[in-house]
Amino acid sequence: MMIKDRIEALRRLMRREGMNAYVIPTNDFHLSEYTGDYFKERRFMSGFTGSAGTLVVTLDDACLWTDGRYYIQAADQLKGSGIRLMKQGMKDVPDIECYLSDVLSTHDTIGFDGRMADAGWGIRLEKKTSDKEILIKWDKNLVDEIWTDRPKMPKDKVFILDEKYAGVSMAEKVQKLRKAMEENHADIHILTSLEDIAWLFNLRGRDVKNTPVFMAYVILEKDTINLYIDGDKLDETTNAYLAKNGVTVKPYHEVYTDIAALDAGKTSMIDLSKINYAIYKGLQTKTAVCQNPTLLMKAVKNDVEIENLFKGHIKDGVAFTKFMYWLKTNIGKTEITEISASDYLASCRAAQEGFVDLSFDTICAYNANAAMMHYSATPESNAVLAPEGFLLVDSGGQYYEGTTDITRTMALGPVSDVMKKHFTAVLRGMLGLQNARFLYGCKGINLDILARGPMWDMGIDYQCGTGHGVGYMLSVHEPPNGFRWKVVPERNDSCVLEAGMVTTDEPGIYLEGRYGIRIENELVCRKGEANEYGQFMYFEPLTFAPIDLDAIDPEELTKTDKNRLNSYHKLVYDTISPYLTDDEAAWLKFYTRAI
Amino acid sequence: MMIKDRIEALRRLMRREGMNAYVIPTNDFHLSEYTGDYFKERRFMSGFTGSAGTLVVTLDDACLWTDGRYYIQAADQLKGSGIRLMKQGMKDVPDIECYLSDVLSTHDTIGFDGRMADAGWGIRLEKKTSDKEILIKWDKNLVDEIWTDRPKMPKDKVFILDEKYAGVSMAEKVQKLRKAMEENHADIHILTSLEDIAWLFNLRGRDVKNTPVFMAYVILEKDTINLYIDGDKLDETTNAYLAKNGVTVKPYHEVYTDIAALDAGKTSMIDLSKINYAIYKGLQTKTAVCQNPTLLMKAVKNDVEIENLFKGHIKDGVAFTKFMYWLKTNIGKTEITEISASDYLASCRAAQEGFVDLSFDTICAYNANAAMMHYSATPESNAVLAPEGFLLVDSGGQYYEGTTDITRTMALGPVSDVMKKHFTAVLRGMLGLQNARFLYGCKGINLDILARGPMWDMGIDYQCGTGHGVGYMLSVHEPPNGFRWKVVPERNDSCVLEAGMVTTDEPGIYLEGRYGIRIENELVCRKGEANEYGQFMYFEPLTFAPIDLDAIDPEELTKTDKNRLNSYHKLVYDTISPYLTDDEAAWLKFYTRAI
Repeated sequence: MMIKDRIEALRRLMRREGMNAYVIPTNDFHLSEYTGDYFKERRFMSGFTGSAGTLVVTLDDACLWTDGRYYIQAADQLKGSGIRLMKQGMKDVPDIECYLSDVLSTHDTIGFDGRMADAGWGIRLEKKTSDKEILIKWDKNLVDEIWTDRPKMPKDKVFILDEKYAGVSMAEKVQKLRKAMEENHADIHILTSLEDIAWLFNLRGRDVKNTPVFMAYVILEKDTINLYIDGDKLDETTNAYLAKNGVTVKPYHEVYTDIAALDAGKTSMIDLSKINYAIYKGLQTKTAVCQNPTLLMKAVKNDVEIENLFKGHIKDGVAFTKFMYWLKTNIGKTEITEISASDYLASCRAAQEGFVDLSFDTICAYNANAAMMHYSATPESNAVLAPEGFLLVDSGGQYYEGTTDITRTMALGPVSDVMKKHFTAVLRGMLGLQNARFLYGCKGINLDILARGPMWDMGIDYQCGTGHGVGYMLSVHEPPNGFRWKVVPERNDSCVLEAGMVTTDEPGIYLEGRYGIRIENELVCRKGEANEYGQFMYFEPLTFAPIDLDAIDPEELTKTDKNRLNSYHKLVYDTISPYLTDDEAAWLKFYTRAI
Repeated sequence: MMIKDRIEALRRLMRREGMNAYVIPTNDFHLSEYTGDYFKERRFMSGFTGSAGTLVVTLDDACLWTDGRYYIQAADQLKGSGIRLMKQGMKDVPDIECYLSDVLSTHDTIGFDGRMADAGWGIRLEKKTSDKEILIKWDKNLVDEIWTDRPKMPKDKVFILDEKYAGVSMAEKVQKLRKAMEENHADIHILTSLEDIAWLFNLRGRDVKNTPVFMAYVILEKDTINLYIDGDKLDETTNAYLAKNGVTVKPYHEVYTDIAALDAGKTSMIDLSKINYAIYKGLQTKTAVCQNPTLLMKAVKNDVEIENLFKGHIKDGVAFTKFMYWLKTNIGKTEITEISASDYLASCRAAQEGFVDLSFDTICAYNANAAMMHYSATPESNAVLAPEGFLLVDSGGQYYEGTTDITRTMALGPVSDVMKKHFTAVLRGMLGLQNARFLYGCKGINLDILARGPMWDMGIDYQCGTGHGVGYMLSVHEPPNGFRWKVVPERNDSCVLEAGMVTTDEPGIYLEGRYGIRIENELVCRKGEANEYGQFMYFEPLTFAPIDLDAIDPEELTKTDKNRLNSYHKLVYDTISPYLTDDEAAWLKFYTRAI
């Protein structure tokens, strides 16, 4: 079945159900950014493979909303589907709620699976469409009937993340969370986001590719903890661990019945951006609406986690450096493709002790492919690498010692002067942010221009944030910290930067049809000097891998830039070289030389 | 009477009135930043001469709140007064509402003159103190009884600012404002802020020193314009002008009666931060609360205003350059003091055609005096300048061709290496912001670090914003544009930067007991290239005066910094030299040489 046929099939079902519009978000029931295959309805229905986007189908139109990272890729993948691309964030592009309230008529009906829509969005939709008295039907999933070979829900076992990795026990985390409940005058806390649950329980799973979470809901009260999970995922050890921690295990889907039965006189602490619309509609208690307290708790890494993160990142840096050595010394001598390069890099990571998984699908993108920020090579697109131009590699691993995310862009041979100029600007931006000194209280929006400025100076922009928070052996994208210049409320990544937060620093230049450049280090925020002006803060790089000197135009670097690059490269060499072969170490010495 | 006696006198009156606390803000009835002498109650009662601050007196305590610009000065001026300094903005310092709700008891009474308090603050105070059922008495001014030789309200004539200066007629502005009323579903607009009224009417006055406004209120309806003003201030020409524009003139104080009599079925558009609490309490209509639309309209200078601004700033630059030449060539040869230098500078400005007034009290501060950001020399403090150290001069003029504000810090002779290092850091910050290129949508908070970064890199901060909006022949401080890193809601100076907005760029370093450095240019925001990434913006400097090369350490400048400084200095020389004597021009040539 082609995309067009699927859309037509959906329209037939919509007519049967009396629906005038049907919305298919990217979410699972837990509003995860990365979802298991079972949930990839939007991809199935639209053909667009990006990690973010919402498909809206009406009886005579179909539109896909996605953000700046995916404008190029989505335009490409939607060709011939009849689906129009809505470039989210561009002026004159309405949001979905406005679009629906505009195109629908009085007393029309909108359908979607309430378990896959976030409560906040559902509430906004209710408000926007109330004037036209539009009906919202959220208890029917129509895609189920079209997607006949839909993948099964996963059954993998969950496992305990030892305290030597997590740093803090589950009991201590639960205690802290109950204190936050008290502060919010709440009796109940409903937790449905998978990263928060995994962090709180010091458990990890294998239900989502690249993100070691497991499908579960939690209802936490003052004296009870109910975990809703498929019991098959628990073995004797985890069952004993849960019992010891006072956890009652209940069937996964039973959460909806239990939520509807909660004492209406009690107060539930909920985060509207983190619970789905079906839960919100089922809940009869009073509510205390706030951000999940676990979001901030898990973003601020503890000392044990930070110590581990350095260990994990050294392993990851060794893997990447070995890959880069292999690539630079073999290009033009043997056939290398985007996919074979990705595979080689994955094998370098897999060779590291404590490696569990990649942290996301590797982006290994040659020349024009790299202009698509989140390109993923397919057998059809798989480019053969020639000894010229830029290869952009954005990749990362899941280790017991943390989650990594690194991008390097490498010259595979000659590159033009303008390419070097662009590469050097991106480098200057990355180093500018990495070397920021700032007073406590700054948010990403205060610092973003340090990374973006060199591009803006040339009249160029990368149409996305400069960086995102990273979990600890969890999701590679975790709010509430981030770097961007304009607050995007629904992303919630513009909090005050706290010591212990880990954020990526990844400016770039993306020129459609030509090439893409991105250089990405992870930074951990640290406390610096405290004096009469306040508490100064700085960043320490967690990422250790050379930045390709072949791609730099030294004339475009100030003395300050050069000092920053040279001292970073010295750090890379000192940190990584002990784990390399002699040949690799000699190569790294040359590629981290002072310029 | 000493300050202590005045406070005691106030406490006697408070006891008589049954008040447990009395609040004295800096405001006039129009919530102006700069006020006429009649209104300087807070100065009279506290002895603190700064332009911002609030005095709160209870029966056993007295506290003055002021911001970072004035910490040093206020601490100095409050010595021996028994008044405690509350450093606004420092953590652990409560705001006034919290302080009052904390120290007062149930059913206590707070007093203040409701005409001098902003409505928003009054509402917050009501909320904060409602738990304790505290009574607010806002219709009695107690200071009146203590301040027996209180200055009179001014009687100066208002005058018309010709359209060749204002660029747009009053009729056109009123039409635009009525359109904004419609958009806000309002029948009435109450306008009390003096800059907004002066701008709307294309009238200026002399009621406030340095700020060419006149005391008035306006009630604008769809078909009527009532101007509440002392009739003595109008002559035949202005009366005719007002009549022609359909304006009804009414006595100044009658506004309170008229407001109370407004049709309760109608809707008044009001800005709670711009109308006083007495008006708010008197108003019986429905309200549409929003920012005065005139605030944004007048911040975005029109083409005629911008053309004039360049003319005005050239005159101001000529005046300042002549002063700097005089200072640099006479220091050590003849006695110069802070006050005599200020006077000489004022005479240079006064010699310019179209000069009307200074735009604020000149800050001419030698060495340690300059560590007080808003120091104003008094006969007691007046320092004799020696041929060594730094002199900071922050000054400006009111011209028909606009309002200016410029700061230069000058080496009067030898300065230490660390002083040069600090001066150069301030310069780098000023140039960094002046040369920003950014996408439309940026606010001051996105750009502030460009100016502040060089100081933060050294673990130093200036505890104030980097810059403020400037009026057109109006107030030297005008929101809603500004540069700061942390939003201060009550300052309302963090709007999106629009083409035509004029903002100062004035980073600094202030070392208590040692010296102060500030370098300030005014910048007009301009549209740059519009391309696939959006509308790029940049700044054009409006200020033309040399930056003292004697105070710079070239080793601390990058090549980029040098290019920026040299091209700015070339611009200064090319612009200013035609208006100088041969000696002055030769001097300027040397002081704007490329380094």
